[in-house]
Amino acid sequence: MFEKINRIRESLWFSNLTTFVIILYAILLGFKTSSEFADIMGSGWIYLDLTITLYFLFELIIKISVDGWKFFHNGWNVFDFLIVIVTLVPINESEFMMIARLLRLFRVLRLLQSRPELKNIIDMLVGAIPSIIDIVILMFIIFYVYGIIGSFLFSGLPSGLWENLLTSMLTLFRILTFEDWTDVMYEAMELNPAYWIFFVSFIIITAFVFFNLFVAVIIGEMESLRDKDKDKNSTSKTDNQKQLENIEQELKEVKELLQKIDSKQK
Amino acid sequence: MFEKINRIRESLWFSNLTTFVIILYAILLGFKTSSEFADIMGSGWIYLDLTITLYFLFELIIKISVDGWKFFHNGWNVFDFLIVIVTLVPINESEFMMIARLLRLFRVLRLLQSRPELKNIIDMLVGAIPSIIDIVILMFIIFYVYGIIGSFLFSGLPSGLWENLLTSMLTLFRILTFEDWTDVMYEAMELNPAYWIFFVSFIIITAFVFFNLFVAVIIGEMESLRDKDKDKNSTSKTDNQKQLENIEQELKEVKELLQKIDSKQK
Amino acid sequence: MFEKINRIRESLWFSNLTTFVIILYAILLGFKTSSEFADIMGSGWIYLDLTITLYFLFELIIKISVDGWKFFHNGWNVFDFLIVIVTLVPINESEFMMIARLLRLFRVLRLLQSRPELKNIIDMLVGAIPSIIDIVILMFIIFYVYGIIGSFLFSGLPSGLWENLLTSMLTLFRILTFEDWTDVMYEAMELNPAYWIFFVSFIIITAFVFFNLFVAVIIGEMESLRDKDKDKNSTSKTDNQKQLENIEQELKEVKELLQKIDSKQK
Amino acid sequence: MFEKINRIRESLWFSNLTTFVIILYAILLGFKTSSEFADIMGSGWIYLDLTITLYFLFELIIKISVDGWKFFHNGWNVFDFLIVIVTLVPINESEFMMIARLLRLFRVLRLLQSRPELKNIIDMLVGAIPSIIDIVILMFIIFYVYGIIGSFLFSGLPSGLWENLLTSMLTLFRILTFEDWTDVMYEAMELNPAYWIFFVSFIIITAFVFFNLFVAVIIGEMESLRDKDKDKNSTSKTDNQKQLENIEQELKEVKELLQKIDSKQK
Repeated sequence: MFEKINRIRESLWFSNLTTFVIILYAILLGFKTSSEFADIMGSGWIYLDLTITLYFLFELIIKISVDGWKFFHNGWNVFDFLIVIVTLVPINESEFMMIARLLRLFRVLRLLQSRPELKNIIDMLVGAIPSIIDIVILMFIIFYVYGIIGSFLFSGLPSGLWENLLTSMLTLFRILTFEDWTDVMYEAMELNPAYWIFFVSFIIITAFVFFNLFVAVIIGEMESLRDKDKDKNSTSKTDNQKQLENIEQELKEVKELLQKIDSKQK
Repeated sequence: MFEKINRIRESLWFSNLTTFVIILYAILLGFKTSSEFADIMGSGWIYLDLTITLYFLFELIIKISVDGWKFFHNGWNVFDFLIVIVTLVPINESEFMMIARLLRLFRVLRLLQSRPELKNIIDMLVGAIPSIIDIVILMFIIFYVYGIIGSFLFSGLPSGLWENLLTSMLTLFRILTFEDWTDVMYEAMELNPAYWIFFVSFIIITAFVFFNLFVAVIIGEMESLRDKDKDKNSTSKTDNQKQLENIEQELKEVKELLQKIDSKQK
Repeated sequence: MFEKINRIRESLWFSNLTTFVIILYAILLGFKTSSEFADIMGSGWIYLDLTITLYFLFELIIKISVDGWKFFHNGWNVFDFLIVIVTLVPINESEFMMIARLLRLFRVLRLLQSRPELKNIIDMLVGAIPSIIDIVILMFIIFYVYGIIGSFLFSGLPSGLWENLLTSMLTLFRILTFEDWTDVMYEAMELNPAYWIFFVSFIIITAFVFFNLFVAVIIGEMESLRDKDKDKNSTSKTDNQKQLENIEQELKEVKELLQKIDSKQK
Repeated sequence: MFEKINRIRESLWFSNLTTFVIILYAILLGFKTSSEFADIMGSGWIYLDLTITLYFLFELIIKISVDGWKFFHNGWNVFDFLIVIVTLVPINESEFMMIARLLRLFRVLRLLQSRPELKNIIDMLVGAIPSIIDIVILMFIIFYVYGIIGSFLFSGLPSGLWENLLTSMLTLFRILTFEDWTDVMYEAMELNPAYWIFFVSFIIITAFVFFNLFVAVIIGEMESLRDKDKDKNSTSKTDNQKQLENIEQELKEVKELLQKIDSKQK
């Protein structure tokens, strides 16, 4: 029995079938967004959803029964496990359940593992995360301070864009993307014409920080590239140095030989 | 006869005439957009269009009769061939035909071949395409997943921006360009105030991916530049190594000579 | 007595307590922005504000009494000192006082000093400032000239966006961020359709300058990285050169020995 | 007489006075934009303008009388000459004259010559122009072709954004800056829902080209930096090579000496 399950788990057609089911699920969901297609299928969607839920459950059971605890060492597997467990909760049409089931779509990202070039880019994206976390902390502090100041100064404005800290920070994010930020500024300037300083300073500071985020990541990546290059070069340099040491050694021997000859001739 | 055609095909004035006709066509189309000029010419435009269609046909026949099948090995030639064939379809004022004929304008891009600096940039643009295709795939998956989620959550909104998957993805592209994205967000937040997470996460993720697209391409270009540089340096390095090997060889000979002398003196 | 104060000033719990008070103050201010929380606390806020003001005063007195004039050599300390002094002015609810007290929030930035990676990025931000100041001067001149021209040409427009030089420069900053700049342009083009030149030229020039600000900073940072690298490489090069000089020296000695032997054999 | 003029032209106070007049002129124009200040001065502005016009004429006459034709070899001088000549035309309040006189403000840019760091950046800006001209040509062709297609497809739209080629290209520039581009697109999509292809393709192509403009300029600047670096390195390499050649030469002499000794011993 276990032999059989193991053979299924290792087989190519099983992993291909899973890939096929994921893509099919993504495509079907795409069609479902169009109201015409949604009507044609009618209640078929419920059975389809059930089938896919059961298939994912079946896939999960096979994988866990073979891999045991090792299954949970891979982040992707844990993600799959959680998604399947959540969707096993009795199907009701609450919004939260709907979003949870839609998250299964992100299993599509797993297909990227097969394309080596894309894997490189994703590795680079992941590699750049540490440098970016620092910037995120810095940005958060700037957003927090500006958010509090903004919410103290402008909370009475009719647009309600500065009602509380969270709304203020969302408004600041909007200003960072330059989205109709002058509307926000002109409204605030009616309280005090000098308030443009708040907005212009925020834009300049965050743009400056964001801009340097860029530089930091590029230079970081370059340095790591350089270090790899140097490792290669340093080995070839030792080659060179070994040769020079050989020559010095040989020269010493030649000198000793000569001194020996010289002493004999006396 | 063939001699004569061949001489025409190779002659400078023939290629210059073609260039002149293409530029003239582009300029005339430019004037035609102004209603005043369009009226002055009246029905002259039809004859002009006919003349240019015939000239392009004439040029095509001469080129094919000389080059034969080799003509179709060049991408530009295939482009020219298709454009001319399409415009030979009886002239009616349907929209599709109009656009097809306007595509002849892209023959102007051919003039760029003569400017070497511009060719370099276009080569670089073309060289960067592979790195960009990977990002496009990644972006497409992100757009697809967000498009489906968005269309499930927001399809009932009166603006109709999330009606179906295609519209949703167009709306997401709009959000990526920061174009009035807060209008879209504020409308969605009326359903549930927590939906700002959908928009802010989308902007941060896609901006992050786009930003790294940039880094990937720069580093890719730099590495290829470096590789070229290394090839040059590695040859000069072998020069250096050869000299060192020569010295070692000579030193060995000196030592042997000395040992010979030493042994003689015994 | 002084011993005791000194021990407090140097103690870890004192610096940790200050950190805790700053973060607590930031979090409480965050809650205060929400009107619900603000009501629950009621007049508690005034006592809290007083407590924190007194704690900051207490911290300042301890630090100054230990460090003396040296305290003012650190920019952060001067910032703290000014903030505390300003907030000691009798508490009234004037806007200026409110902003001054909110500036205490920026003491949060001090916490960044403890994270070394963040310190690197801030050092880089600070290091890039000189290159940026030059660009700022250049940008200011461009803004000034365009601001005066714009304000002479468009001051009569009903939107009042070009009323005086300051407003004009704010409008130009808005155009630089592409924020509804066409609304501004279309209004101006009603005076004279050729005025698009003013806006398009401004966008192209400032985008060009901004773009090169980027390049300037990147190249500047890279050069400084290179210089550091070279210093390391140059020492290893001298190693190489010393070896070569040793070989030359030894060879000379060998030759002299040989000449001696040769002369003896005559 | 000529001696005296020459002494004035070379004197520091003369160039300082010119600088002072230019800055004063810029500041006064700045104040003039505020209607309050403009009223206080009243008709004083006309005399001030006259004084500055006369001073610039006086400065020009002194410089030309000393330098002769050499005066016109410097681009800045030619600019000054044209500006002064234009403003000598009898003062009327036509718009063209007003703009011409305002162009005198750009004489402020001349002050930048004195700041060496800023000069470096301006040199870099100027140095990047050739790479950018190529991109401008490429962009112009793309704008031209899209402008003609857009103006043929959308010229009937009520907004009048595609009336003729110039308007179309201005609209395309607006789309490039993402300024309310969806308004333009949604209007066009009422004719045919597939027209989003026109806008999305335009944005992707021009953003792609612009993005690579960036890469091209950075890599160009880096290559020129590298070439300078290599020139330095190559000289130090020859040093290394000379040493190796010396060693080889010396070794040869040693061998010859040894062969001589060896032959004597026979």
